[in-house]
Amino acid sequence: MKEIGIGLIGTGFMGKAHAIAYRTALSAFPDIPAPRLVAVADVNTEAARKAAHQYGFESATSDWKALIANPAIQVVSITTPNSMHKEMALAAIAAGKHVHCEKPLSPTLADSLDMVKAAEARGVCTQVGFNYIKNPLLKLARQMVEAGELGEITGFRGIHAEDYMHDPQSPWTWRIDPSGGPGVIADLGSHIIGMARFLLGEIAEVSADVRTVIKQRPVARGASEMKPVEVDDVARILVQFGRGCGGTIEANWIQTGRKMQLGFELTGEKGSLVFTQERLNELLYYKAGGEARHMGFTRIESGPQHEPYGGFCVAGGHQLGFNDLKTIEMAEFLGGIAKGKSTGPDFREAYEIQKVVEAAIASSQQRNWIKV
Amino acid sequence: MKEIGIGLIGTGFMGKAHAIAYRTALSAFPDIPAPRLVAVADVNTEAARKAAHQYGFESATSDWKALIANPAIQVVSITTPNSMHKEMALAAIAAGKHVHCEKPLSPTLADSLDMVKAAEARGVCTQVGFNYIKNPLLKLARQMVEAGELGEITGFRGIHAEDYMHDPQSPWTWRIDPSGGPGVIADLGSHIIGMARFLLGEIAEVSADVRTVIKQRPVARGASEMKPVEVDDVARILVQFGRGCGGTIEANWIQTGRKMQLGFELTGEKGSLVFTQERLNELLYYKAGGEARHMGFTRIESGPQHEPYGGFCVAGGHQLGFNDLKTIEMAEFLGGIAKGKSTGPDFREAYEIQKVVEAAIASSQQRNWIKV
Amino acid sequence: MKEIGIGLIGTGFMGKAHAIAYRTALSAFPDIPAPRLVAVADVNTEAARKAAHQYGFESATSDWKALIANPAIQVVSITTPNSMHKEMALAAIAAGKHVHCEKPLSPTLADSLDMVKAAEARGVCTQVGFNYIKNPLLKLARQMVEAGELGEITGFRGIHAEDYMHDPQSPWTWRIDPSGGPGVIADLGSHIIGMARFLLGEIAEVSADVRTVIKQRPVARGASEMKPVEVDDVARILVQFGRGCGGTIEANWIQTGRKMQLGFELTGEKGSLVFTQERLNELLYYKAGGEARHMGFTRIESGPQHEPYGGFCVAGGHQLGFNDLKTIEMAEFLGGIAKGKSTGPDFREAYEIQKVVEAAIASSQQRNWIKV
Amino acid sequence: MKEIGIGLIGTGFMGKAHAIAYRTALSAFPDIPAPRLVAVADVNTEAARKAAHQYGFESATSDWKALIANPAIQVVSITTPNSMHKEMALAAIAAGKHVHCEKPLSPTLADSLDMVKAAEARGVCTQVGFNYIKNPLLKLARQMVEAGELGEITGFRGIHAEDYMHDPQSPWTWRIDPSGGPGVIADLGSHIIGMARFLLGEIAEVSADVRTVIKQRPVARGASEMKPVEVDDVARILVQFGRGCGGTIEANWIQTGRKMQLGFELTGEKGSLVFTQERLNELLYYKAGGEARHMGFTRIESGPQHEPYGGFCVAGGHQLGFNDLKTIEMAEFLGGIAKGKSTGPDFREAYEIQKVVEAAIASSQQRNWIKV
Repeated sequence: MKEIGIGLIGTGFMGKAHAIAYRTALSAFPDIPAPRLVAVADVNTEAARKAAHQYGFESATSDWKALIANPAIQVVSITTPNSMHKEMALAAIAAGKHVHCEKPLSPTLADSLDMVKAAEARGVCTQVGFNYIKNPLLKLARQMVEAGELGEITGFRGIHAEDYMHDPQSPWTWRIDPSGGPGVIADLGSHIIGMARFLLGEIAEVSADVRTVIKQRPVARGASEMKPVEVDDVARILVQFGRGCGGTIEANWIQTGRKMQLGFELTGEKGSLVFTQERLNELLYYKAGGEARHMGFTRIESGPQHEPYGGFCVAGGHQLGFNDLKTIEMAEFLGGIAKGKSTGPDFREAYEIQKVVEAAIASSQQRNWIKV
Repeated sequence: MKEIGIGLIGTGFMGKAHAIAYRTALSAFPDIPAPRLVAVADVNTEAARKAAHQYGFESATSDWKALIANPAIQVVSITTPNSMHKEMALAAIAAGKHVHCEKPLSPTLADSLDMVKAAEARGVCTQVGFNYIKNPLLKLARQMVEAGELGEITGFRGIHAEDYMHDPQSPWTWRIDPSGGPGVIADLGSHIIGMARFLLGEIAEVSADVRTVIKQRPVARGASEMKPVEVDDVARILVQFGRGCGGTIEANWIQTGRKMQLGFELTGEKGSLVFTQERLNELLYYKAGGEARHMGFTRIESGPQHEPYGGFCVAGGHQLGFNDLKTIEMAEFLGGIAKGKSTGPDFREAYEIQKVVEAAIASSQQRNWIKV
Repeated sequence: MKEIGIGLIGTGFMGKAHAIAYRTALSAFPDIPAPRLVAVADVNTEAARKAAHQYGFESATSDWKALIANPAIQVVSITTPNSMHKEMALAAIAAGKHVHCEKPLSPTLADSLDMVKAAEARGVCTQVGFNYIKNPLLKLARQMVEAGELGEITGFRGIHAEDYMHDPQSPWTWRIDPSGGPGVIADLGSHIIGMARFLLGEIAEVSADVRTVIKQRPVARGASEMKPVEVDDVARILVQFGRGCGGTIEANWIQTGRKMQLGFELTGEKGSLVFTQERLNELLYYKAGGEARHMGFTRIESGPQHEPYGGFCVAGGHQLGFNDLKTIEMAEFLGGIAKGKSTGPDFREAYEIQKVVEAAIASSQQRNWIKV
Repeated sequence: MKEIGIGLIGTGFMGKAHAIAYRTALSAFPDIPAPRLVAVADVNTEAARKAAHQYGFESATSDWKALIANPAIQVVSITTPNSMHKEMALAAIAAGKHVHCEKPLSPTLADSLDMVKAAEARGVCTQVGFNYIKNPLLKLARQMVEAGELGEITGFRGIHAEDYMHDPQSPWTWRIDPSGGPGVIADLGSHIIGMARFLLGEIAEVSADVRTVIKQRPVARGASEMKPVEVDDVARILVQFGRGCGGTIEANWIQTGRKMQLGFELTGEKGSLVFTQERLNELLYYKAGGEARHMGFTRIESGPQHEPYGGFCVAGGHQLGFNDLKTIEMAEFLGGIAKGKSTGPDFREAYEIQKVVEAAIASSQQRNWIKV
């Protein structure tokens, strides 16, 4: 496969990120099929046209079904609101297209399962936008865990906290419309749950406190009329991993001051790792058992020794950014398609993550431990 | 009151810390009664004698009861193993002495309550060794919470993690003898629970996972014979504060690489504070609502503008150390005695902290939420 | 101007960086002319062909003169070794092409001046690859200096230190061939000198210590035969700015452990800024005169409030990487061309930077202060 | 020698620091002679009396000569203004007393040399208050340099910058009275010069820019009358060490925002160390040659493995503060006296440091390199 046709649905925050990633992927990953940017769709015709120009797609359309039907397209990227994912994904799958869908798959577990089954039945490759784990340093972290370099794992403390909803005067938006699914536990929680699973494997059981802190918000910016909030602002979760260790996970979108507090402290009997997306090019590593007077956490800086950093830059210390992580994600997806397999996280993995989300919500309601 | 006689029981880690603190207190706090170091007691006569010389006590004894009976002594500091606290404290109280006791008060809640009641009945001043909250920056943090500078508080994430038990080959010691009470949740957990209460007030309810990770340890260093461990290595707790907000608290003594990870992230609608004892002279403060392009967390460095730093040094940036925190603790205790009241944390507060510890243990056993 | 034809000469480290930047520029900057990747040249035909495929150029050639002559090309990017810059740039200028040239312009001041004069005479736009100052946070820093937010500037401490030559066993390479010009003072020093000028304006006078620390290196990796090193490893410079304040600048490629220690501490009577490229999405800002108990350095995190971050991502905290800085550089260059002016740093500015380099070398030889 | 009588002259900032240090020394260093706090002197009788009570001296006097004459005193600590050091020190030496004198020894090199000669002729032990190098982590740093763990040393970058004079409205004080000697280069510069010498040995040659930035100051706080400033605010120095490597040293008391930026980056062919007094319990260490994917700077936290930390606390991570460094200084001084030798930095070392200060000032005036 020398070339692969791409169709993009949606032109917002994630639409642009997908576009930049597809445009850059081959430059950083010479062995993948060359992505051909065939068409972009947006309900707003003008937005679609502008996006086609700006991102370099050959054509624009306001009809996503036409995009899916386009025979030049083998890959469909879905970046529309959550509630539209299912219909689009099922249509693309039915047309035999490989599908990248932004997270979360859908507002409900049942819908997500339908999507998983459809994709698996049709045999297409899928991917879901858990971009942060594409970081070369997280690949290193996982390798170290798997190779036993940290010894038996004894704990995990994961957080994804930001503050875009911290102000009680921030108005009601689509983010907190319950028809889109849960609140922060789906929006940010899915990232840190996915990261925990990426590093340590399945989460078997949870006990959670999932709550709405700001109980009502103005119907619009500056409005005096208030509307009750039904989705969660904070989720605090005790977790039991399948491998035996325990941990905590927190998702929070009212964490005043934090713009990207996504990270973890992962501890084993022989070593520990500390990571925060706030400094995504650094990984702290403590190795037990060395010379006492020299011991401490070592700040590893990302470099070409950490694959696939070298595809972006031959010299260490130059640093990757968010869009580079998205590029890795898309390049791996396209590379996987060429080999006939999803590189993950695929629809199945996204569904497993969503199961943890749902278990946490149920646990909070029932106020006890719930098996995932 | 111009002078106050001190008797110290125990000459180990905390015994020395108390001695240094009493020796330094008047230099940093000119208005307190001058501590007179009257006597030091240790079951080991030679240790007592050495301590008297080294720390400058007028006399040494192997008989703690004689020390308590000494009429020149008004204050008794108890730094012996937990299981001995009660008998000594009750004797000192009975003799009308003011009592400083290291934490935890005693291995069981019932014994601790006896100690509280005895002290309150007799009307003596008491203090328990929760030294970390004596930090000038923690006093600032509490003032900011109380003054509403952070707005409505929406979350607290507290941790006290160290690694002195992380190695499975670390042998069985008194620390893990269940006759001394719970494990890390009492040893380190009490510090972070106390800090949470100091900052935000009472903890109303908990749901906890308290577990023994390393199930057995060698009976002695290098021994092949193993002995089962009965006390906890890690405690992870979901908390509900009386004031309404939620949070998490973790205590951990197998956190490989951490020597003093005691700290918190405390969030309100208008601002946040981040602290770690690893950098005890710094407090991070985020203030919402400023000029967007300049916003971020500000690293406040301890200085004379943060009382009582100025008693130690007139210039900022010079930094306090652990023993200085202990000095503040002792100076406040002595200053309180002169005014006839405990400055806290007193026996009552230590008991309240222990109630949270016990509730967490019960919650973990019953696997649900427990009211404190 | 709706479209602009790009020709790239050279396909190494910087060649790839240019290509990715041109491919991404329009996505992040919708108002610039659309770059059309017309041709790429490399003396190695196969390398050129591969680059054309990987970076999406329409054609490949081993003849850079043919590339320059191509009428579909309006912009030529030169990323070949320093000693080849002049001939290529002069040819491109003669053909009326706008020229981007990697730094340094040429090995000698005289050659660089020829290039400046040719470009200015022909009226083409030029740009030189001082990418680090394209950081949104450095634009903020400059605005703050210019707006007087830091008050009268009283000092600047600048460093660009890395360690790629720290090992005495690192062999002789083109980097230390004196025909390519000076050593670290040109390679890294030009970046920090350019950054100093970007922030504070002209450097009037210097007193420098420029030295070769590792006096000889193996002729090849592992070889026992040694060859003397003639270029500098470290340059330490006292500087006097035209605006009146003093400072220091250091360039160092044997700074063991440092991969990208490029940064500064810039101090004024009313505030200070601290920056390091090691954490390129952060700027530390101290503002004098606030409430004493809350003062300290504030860690500003890059976000859409800092232009042109928002072109890459609508949400703060997501972070830019090195290639994004290069994209800003190229987008500004293309945007400037559309308006008929160089946005800088142009050839003239690169020449001014090189004058400081040469003055420092002369100062070190003469062991006194030298006017630039 | 079981006991040693102490006399303290001066009761200000440093007077208190000496007192606390003497009071704590034996507790942390059991093998030194027990300091007996015999007398404290201050020209202000009331200040002397208060100090005696607060710091626990047996007596107070306004007559420093009487203090020196007191036969119960073997050690005299001088903490008065610089211009008074010489007379007091010479008197104490003449009386055969061991002398601790705060830095700088005296306002002029000639006076300091008189003091050195007198002390050496009389054979008393001396010490000067360069307290920061008493840090256990700096002892570790020096040991690593000496043991060759960093390989051949290739560079040193030292800074001592604070901001207590940064505001042009800060009035004229004794600090800037030229009768007290030079400005920041003596006050702070002597610390970092001393630290450089402690780590790397003698400084052979300097080229410096020593300047007065704020040319006049109000005669008093808020006054409109201005008085010219004659001493330096900033000193920037290129240095050549006797061992062969180069470096830079800066002293600055107008570094807005910095309260204690005293530190260095010290680089060798095999490793590097980074230290700042802002985090005095941490030392960053980079060791070249390890496994590439794990390399980086390791943050070493102070603990009992770093002597003499263990004298203060048996557990790592608890942290020393400024007064603890002063305690180490005094304990070493007393311990040295018991063995009949100065442990340093003694008067001779302080004089050598002052020679570097004077050479830098001369270099700045002559605008060229000066041999120390």
